[in-house]
Amino acid sequence: MELWYTEEQTKNIRFSMKIKEHLFSGKSKFQKVDIFDSYEFGKLMTLDGLVMVTEKDEFIYHDMIVHTPMAVNPNMKQVLVIGGGDGGTVRELLRYDKIQHIDMVEIDKMVCDVAKNYLPTLSCGLNNPKVALYYEDGIKFIKDKKNKYDLIIIDSTDPIGPGEGLFTYEFYSDCYMALTEDGILVNQNESAVYEDNRVETVRATKKLKEIFPIAKVYQANIPTYPSGHWLFGFASKKLHPLKDLQSKNWNNLNIKTKYYNTDLHIGSFALPNYIKEIISDGNV
Amino acid sequence: MELWYTEEQTKNIRFSMKIKEHLFSGKSKFQKVDIFDSYEFGKLMTLDGLVMVTEKDEFIYHDMIVHTPMAVNPNMKQVLVIGGGDGGTVRELLRYDKIQHIDMVEIDKMVCDVAKNYLPTLSCGLNNPKVALYYEDGIKFIKDKKNKYDLIIIDSTDPIGPGEGLFTYEFYSDCYMALTEDGILVNQNESAVYEDNRVETVRATKKLKEIFPIAKVYQANIPTYPSGHWLFGFASKKLHPLKDLQSKNWNNLNIKTKYYNTDLHIGSFALPNYIKEIISDGNV
Repeated sequence: MELWYTEEQTKNIRFSMKIKEHLFSGKSKFQKVDIFDSYEFGKLMTLDGLVMVTEKDEFIYHDMIVHTPMAVNPNMKQVLVIGGGDGGTVRELLRYDKIQHIDMVEIDKMVCDVAKNYLPTLSCGLNNPKVALYYEDGIKFIKDKKNKYDLIIIDSTDPIGPGEGLFTYEFYSDCYMALTEDGILVNQNESAVYEDNRVETVRATKKLKEIFPIAKVYQANIPTYPSGHWLFGFASKKLHPLKDLQSKNWNNLNIKTKYYNTDLHIGSFALPNYIKEIISDGNV
Repeated sequence: MELWYTEEQTKNIRFSMKIKEHLFSGKSKFQKVDIFDSYEFGKLMTLDGLVMVTEKDEFIYHDMIVHTPMAVNPNMKQVLVIGGGDGGTVRELLRYDKIQHIDMVEIDKMVCDVAKNYLPTLSCGLNNPKVALYYEDGIKFIKDKKNKYDLIIIDSTDPIGPGEGLFTYEFYSDCYMALTEDGILVNQNESAVYEDNRVETVRATKKLKEIFPIAKVYQANIPTYPSGHWLFGFASKKLHPLKDLQSKNWNNLNIKTKYYNTDLHIGSFALPNYIKEIISDGNV
């Protein structure tokens, strides 16, 4: 007998992983949560049938969503993570001694509970005393926060289901208000390769550009995500992701990373022409 | 009824595309050649059941294998292409007026014939008067060539079957001899993400480093290739891919590209740490 997990990445493209065991299946108030153990990528979590993280390639996503803004301002102290229930983002943030406090707002407690049980290499930082965990809606949580966070990371699911409200103009405006003067917002911004997926990348980028003086897109290669070419948004009030990159300071921190380095940081903002055109034209 | 093409990218990973029609299937002396028409990626050619090119994403591979060396020396005149039967590499080379002549050596005539019939957007340059087409073994073809080519592009299949000899020390040494003093060799160098595939990347890179004073690896995101993260080798006698990059000269040529640009050129040599470690350790 063979067991295969198959994801419909578009209606015409499927990606399949051979599975050792289906370890967990649950349904929360918000979504279906599953844990599989795969031969190629180790254990993986899916939400509503879409791969969120795998043990073998999660380091790419988490390196890029955390170290990219941190290398632009290694002195950040107050951080807000919205989503990120698996814990990978918090784990990377905790490697910075200067970070004093992390608020993490995950709408779905089941995601954290399941990550704590099945993905210890990801969730290991969730009980750290520097972390305050809120099982709440990030959209509501941020409403009354003003000039509070140096960094906001939107580590959301895709903009369908519970992640939808995290891609709106209103939410990004609230983030702007919640950021300090040096503040940086980073979001996972989908992929622009497949036509099916690029609508939200384009919309999210357009909204961030309207609100923030600086709004850029950067890329990484994540094998288990559709097309393998994944995008992130970098938006800030005054710090530029390349001009203000603190390569020397960041490298002096001696944080050993498996994907990120400061040369790659620069390269990750050099998008292919066709992606630049899709994003800037706004035609999807 | 639904028709799906499925590639076993590793023994535990499958990538599938929904197919409109299976347009051609043939068996040459060397390999099985198939053409499919797919919904997501247009027409595609497979050799022995592995995707070589698709109409929708071939521009990435061909941009990176041609424009990367050309931007380091935009004055190249004599070019040798080994493999590349679909014609995409020659098509991109022909955009440079300064290139006077291209020898293309494809072992399998069926690949060219099928490309001419089914993939006209790729094969359109194969009858150009600047191109001499040889249906021969590249390994033998290069043996008596000395100081002849400014650029050699090894646009091979995977190192199994007919492409195998194009990954050897002896062949690379012959290429070194065939290159002019300013000469550059570029090869498609597989992917290092999956353990199954990385053996040849590591071996090929090691061999090139032994023979050429300058030998580097660069990357691109190709959605239909295993892991989406594809590598190329850049080896030369004296030109460095970054220090000698002629950004201004290349941009002045006004060659419109869909993937390549000179910022991305620099970024493409900034490899992730884990890929750098795999390549430099030589442990596979």
